[in-house]
Amino acid sequence: MNDFTRTVAQLKDLIDAELMNAAPQIKPHSLYEPIRYFLGIGGKRLRPILLIFSAQAVGGKTDDALDAAVAIELLHNFTLVHDDIMDHDHLRRGQATVHVRWDESVAILAGDGLIGLAYRQLMKLPGQHLTTVCRLFTEGVVEVCEGQAYDKEFEALDDVTLDDYFRMIGKKTGRLITMATEIGAILGGGTEEEIAILTEYGSIIGTAFQIQDDLLDIMQSEEIIGKTYGSDVKAGKKTFLMVKSLETAGSSAWGKLKTLLNTSEITNDQLLEIRTLFDEMQIFKSAEDEIRHYFDTANRVLDKFPHPEATTGLRNFSEMLLNRKS
Amino acid sequence: MNDFTRTVAQLKDLIDAELMNAAPQIKPHSLYEPIRYFLGIGGKRLRPILLIFSAQAVGGKTDDALDAAVAIELLHNFTLVHDDIMDHDHLRRGQATVHVRWDESVAILAGDGLIGLAYRQLMKLPGQHLTTVCRLFTEGVVEVCEGQAYDKEFEALDDVTLDDYFRMIGKKTGRLITMATEIGAILGGGTEEEIAILTEYGSIIGTAFQIQDDLLDIMQSEEIIGKTYGSDVKAGKKTFLMVKSLETAGSSAWGKLKTLLNTSEITNDQLLEIRTLFDEMQIFKSAEDEIRHYFDTANRVLDKFPHPEATTGLRNFSEMLLNRKS
Repeated sequence: MNDFTRTVAQLKDLIDAELMNAAPQIKPHSLYEPIRYFLGIGGKRLRPILLIFSAQAVGGKTDDALDAAVAIELLHNFTLVHDDIMDHDHLRRGQATVHVRWDESVAILAGDGLIGLAYRQLMKLPGQHLTTVCRLFTEGVVEVCEGQAYDKEFEALDDVTLDDYFRMIGKKTGRLITMATEIGAILGGGTEEEIAILTEYGSIIGTAFQIQDDLLDIMQSEEIIGKTYGSDVKAGKKTFLMVKSLETAGSSAWGKLKTLLNTSEITNDQLLEIRTLFDEMQIFKSAEDEIRHYFDTANRVLDKFPHPEATTGLRNFSEMLLNRKS
Repeated sequence: MNDFTRTVAQLKDLIDAELMNAAPQIKPHSLYEPIRYFLGIGGKRLRPILLIFSAQAVGGKTDDALDAAVAIELLHNFTLVHDDIMDHDHLRRGQATVHVRWDESVAILAGDGLIGLAYRQLMKLPGQHLTTVCRLFTEGVVEVCEGQAYDKEFEALDDVTLDDYFRMIGKKTGRLITMATEIGAILGGGTEEEIAILTEYGSIIGTAFQIQDDLLDIMQSEEIIGKTYGSDVKAGKKTFLMVKSLETAGSSAWGKLKTLLNTSEITNDQLLEIRTLFDEMQIFKSAEDEIRHYFDTANRVLDKFPHPEATTGLRNFSEMLLNRKS
């Protein structure tokens, strides 16, 4: 384990502990049991770690950023619990989702409770930053809902463009990641220039992150990814792969793909066929090129940083993201 | 229409307009259409009006309190949209609930969007009050979730006591009403003593309000109340009536009541039988006595106010609540 991996593991442990501290109550059981279950089944904790690295890049300490880091992870978990209901997903982090283990009512309320706990955590911030950060956080809540709404709307549409796709993921996924770098930079005491650079950096890796997610949905096994295999394809989600393949309509592979996608219930065998067709259409290569392009761009953004040596943590973080398998 | 009724109607119009301003967006349609629909089908707007009257009682102006008033109504609407899913209610304010008119996913997301909009509205408060009010508001969000969790848990229990009942409604219903008076008093510039008195007042009328709601569920027609008739009884809710009747177990009416409640699907005819049994057991009289007792107590709390004449609005408000038919 190198120094960076060790740092990430330590931060993850710290955040895991703080998350459980954020929900110390036992009663009512039907609220706190599912919340503690979901917070306890793991998760990569990428957003809070990114928030802390962003604070450190501008000279801040972990402690300055910890409450906001925990708040952003609670907010992320709120979106996961509710999205899993809407997307009928049964697996998350290799475990049953809340609405499967309990029921939909419990999952709705657990999500609602998580957003309350997220704001409670945020309210611990020192006065001089509270208003600014709380405003950013709130705009994030609204935008994440907008992103999820577009994502659901796109399921029924066949004419989603790459522009639509990038706007949707910018809200659904990008917003929280951008918020992590921006809030981290603010809490770390960054200058306006530093905050702007880190915000831009967050926005770019957020996009790369979602394209990776789209790829992992069909490339990775359930055991490794911990989510339902091919869930996006089965739900008719307009992922990068799907929108890109719409663009190359006309090829013979496209005709076959369309027939498969129109199947009412897509089986795992059909998912493998779809995977082969994506491959023939060079869709995976496009996605990988795109991801690489975004990570290169993100690194170039960090080059503009006044003290480039301070961005080592963030560069290692990008590298870790680039190589992620789940 | 007397002066007070006119004032209430004017405030309601003002709040209705501000609620629509709080959700001006059109896209994504699947998010903002249901939000605007739900905000547009009316509602008594009791919490925001109470918040404004509380601000006025301590010498504040409507404008000082308006953003928080709108925020609390948005928060209330968030709980209604989600509770209607959990409670399988099909009618609200005489119109189809969001999950019936669209579907559960749309309703989950509309509720989530509403809480984002509620905080956005709250963030407009002037700096000197923002932190305090935002903390109170956030504790309210958590407590309302706890109250709803207890309410759902109690559906499956037969040994709910009056203590359990009052704790549950204190969180589920009382918290938002207490928050309205407390935040109103803060924003109006009240002294510590005034804030404490109005908080106590809010807590008491909140309790009375929920017992009334329990009574209206079985006493009032769908046309007038705008909600599913007998929804609480059908769901096995532990209302004041139900808990009180558990206390008088042993009477012959109680035996018949228990048989009826164990029916798998309670019909409207059976609801009428249950109503008759409640009447025989003097449950309605108990509820009415209790409501009257709480309103009397609330008025006595207002007597402690440094300038009793300033509480005329609140006293009229209590009187209006006491006589409400829906």
